[in-house]
Amino acid sequence: MPVKLSAPTPASLLPVSGVQLGFAKAHVRKQDRKDVLVMTLAEGSRVAGVFTKNRFCAAPVILCKEYLAQKTGIRALLVNTGCANAGTGEDGLNRAKQSCKALSDLLKIDANQVLPFSTGVILESLPVDKVIAGLPAVITNLKEDNWLNAAEAIMTTDIVAKGTSRQFQLSGKQVTITGISKGSGMIHPNMATMLAYIATDVVVSQAALESIIHYAVNKSFNCITVDGDTSTNDSLIMMATNQAGNAEITEKSVDFLVLRDALTDIAIELAQAIVRDGEGATKFMTVTVEGGKNETECRKVAYAIAHSPLIKTAFFASDPNLGRILAAIGYAGIDDLDVDNLQLYLGEVLVAEKGGRATSYREEQGAAIMKESDILVRVVLNRGKENITIWTCDFSYDYVKINADYRS
Amino acid sequence: MPVKLSAPTPASLLPVSGVQLGFAKAHVRKQDRKDVLVMTLAEGSRVAGVFTKNRFCAAPVILCKEYLAQKTGIRALLVNTGCANAGTGEDGLNRAKQSCKALSDLLKIDANQVLPFSTGVILESLPVDKVIAGLPAVITNLKEDNWLNAAEAIMTTDIVAKGTSRQFQLSGKQVTITGISKGSGMIHPNMATMLAYIATDVVVSQAALESIIHYAVNKSFNCITVDGDTSTNDSLIMMATNQAGNAEITEKSVDFLVLRDALTDIAIELAQAIVRDGEGATKFMTVTVEGGKNETECRKVAYAIAHSPLIKTAFFASDPNLGRILAAIGYAGIDDLDVDNLQLYLGEVLVAEKGGRATSYREEQGAAIMKESDILVRVVLNRGKENITIWTCDFSYDYVKINADYRS
Repeated sequence: MPVKLSAPTPASLLPVSGVQLGFAKAHVRKQDRKDVLVMTLAEGSRVAGVFTKNRFCAAPVILCKEYLAQKTGIRALLVNTGCANAGTGEDGLNRAKQSCKALSDLLKIDANQVLPFSTGVILESLPVDKVIAGLPAVITNLKEDNWLNAAEAIMTTDIVAKGTSRQFQLSGKQVTITGISKGSGMIHPNMATMLAYIATDVVVSQAALESIIHYAVNKSFNCITVDGDTSTNDSLIMMATNQAGNAEITEKSVDFLVLRDALTDIAIELAQAIVRDGEGATKFMTVTVEGGKNETECRKVAYAIAHSPLIKTAFFASDPNLGRILAAIGYAGIDDLDVDNLQLYLGEVLVAEKGGRATSYREEQGAAIMKESDILVRVVLNRGKENITIWTCDFSYDYVKINADYRS
Repeated sequence: MPVKLSAPTPASLLPVSGVQLGFAKAHVRKQDRKDVLVMTLAEGSRVAGVFTKNRFCAAPVILCKEYLAQKTGIRALLVNTGCANAGTGEDGLNRAKQSCKALSDLLKIDANQVLPFSTGVILESLPVDKVIAGLPAVITNLKEDNWLNAAEAIMTTDIVAKGTSRQFQLSGKQVTITGISKGSGMIHPNMATMLAYIATDVVVSQAALESIIHYAVNKSFNCITVDGDTSTNDSLIMMATNQAGNAEITEKSVDFLVLRDALTDIAIELAQAIVRDGEGATKFMTVTVEGGKNETECRKVAYAIAHSPLIKTAFFASDPNLGRILAAIGYAGIDDLDVDNLQLYLGEVLVAEKGGRATSYREEQGAAIMKESDILVRVVLNRGKENITIWTCDFSYDYVKINADYRS
């Protein structure tokens, strides 16, 4: 069996002025595991969030949305693993509130200035007493240079901690961005919880930050998941601590696009890291669909390919059984698709055109590419000018093993 | 690992007057395997078909639709396994036509009175010479009492042959229905080829037969697959040979509903047999969604559950990780779903209500049901009066093994 493909664990993550991080082993579900994380934010920080559209969204997601809408001035984030606190009704909301209250008491802020996050098993009660009992230890080790521990503290079935940092000049000031993420349920990426936290010390307006997070999520996390098809707990948070001393970035600033693109790059890197750490993944697949009439139809084709267990198992087996890709294109839901007018490429190799196998294609070419660990599937629809790129991974014995055994 | 769950191989299948069946080992892909089947129909037989909606539909599907539309008076069906003749363009059409022509010459009928069918690997050329070379042997063993051999001859990754028969009185005459099917790619049932052939000796009008096949497919094969999400080759054929001596059944006949329901029952049985023989399946899951506003939303919820690899692996592991079912209900795409107002049952046991775990639910109850091989998941939406029932299976190590190794 091929070895596990993993994103490299980040060697180090840069502190972001105004963000302190602390963790504890609170025994929420397992012993001897970092499972509670707190991030505190300097007063005046701006925070924006994007959350799951799942109708069964978890209690902490409900509270996050409520507190952000109240513009309470978020000062802390509280994350636990081991229990998703989803499908837990009114009692789940109360437990999440209790955890926020306990942290806010220790930090001497208001409970609705704390955003809660949970990930783990659904439909089970949050052991809030354990979370709260862990908080004093968390407070003790709060510090700015603690991102790598934070990345580890939010892991569930993840094999490696995921994080990345960038430092650059913006409006004449050196600024820092650091982000961490977790999640690895990759056959339908939408069904495992993804959590991502991206912090910067840049001074940026709330409106600009909101604009950036929506742009970035569409280019990153929404390219490893389907719109609306998300888990109960998926959350992406962007935080700006206003510590860098730059003139405030608004949507009209000349440097707005620089900041937007830098934050988006970080989001893409974190999203791809989740795919690379997909449960049981041995191959990283990039699926590009070009020449569609609109983005929607490009996404349909890309996801039909990326979600097909038949295709994903063929990639696992390094088997260039490319007809399965044609079949997926065919059922992707484009009613007037002319299959005789599209091209399918594997890497640089033209595989199919004119409704069938390309005359130039040789099975050895496909076999050689399928042996690589990073593979590009490219479909050219020749119907319009829209393109999309998404990322996924293959599907192995280990996926079944991990998910069959997850709770045991 | 649990043992393979299989549908029982039918002990015997009843001949249908006017239908003769013959087979050969033509070495299309493998040696020593029945891989070509011919069914001949008495003159005057009525034939109706329902086919895949995949835009990349296979060459034989294109020809079937064409010949049926021409009302040529179908007299024979020719099926090969080992090669799907899909994604093969103009050359694929020519090869399918050649095979029809060769059989029609032997049977002294016209080429467009032969419906062709193929199942197997996509994107490869049909070895039509091998098919044709096998036809004389097929002709030699044509006989009415050959349905079990026919059921075996259409198998690909199927573990067991699938077929069923029924005999009953209709308009004072004894009539017979026999059907066979193949297909077993069950995680997305839509992606493996399903072939099904149902024959009866009843005298029935073409219009009535067309009406019945559409009714039956919606209650059977469309309940193990998603509309429009079908493989390149899926085909269901109903044949009536007009030999039973009954007064012709039309849509206005008093016995129309009797015939419709009998043919539908056969179709359901054949469709369920495909699920029970799902690739690597160890459990048969019935998913019922009740109280929806319309059938579409019931189907969305049912398929979100039935397609979730996380749910299917949990069933494989006999793990009552039922939160995964709630998550699937939540992302099924009903935007105004009130999750506090639905109930989830596992078998007879109420598992979740009011947005969370039912207070009466005990994990031991779930664990006991999950150990069974035939499991009912029931969701009550409490939004309307529509219901749907679909069937699927769990997801095991063997699914990956079968699909990773399929071509080798």
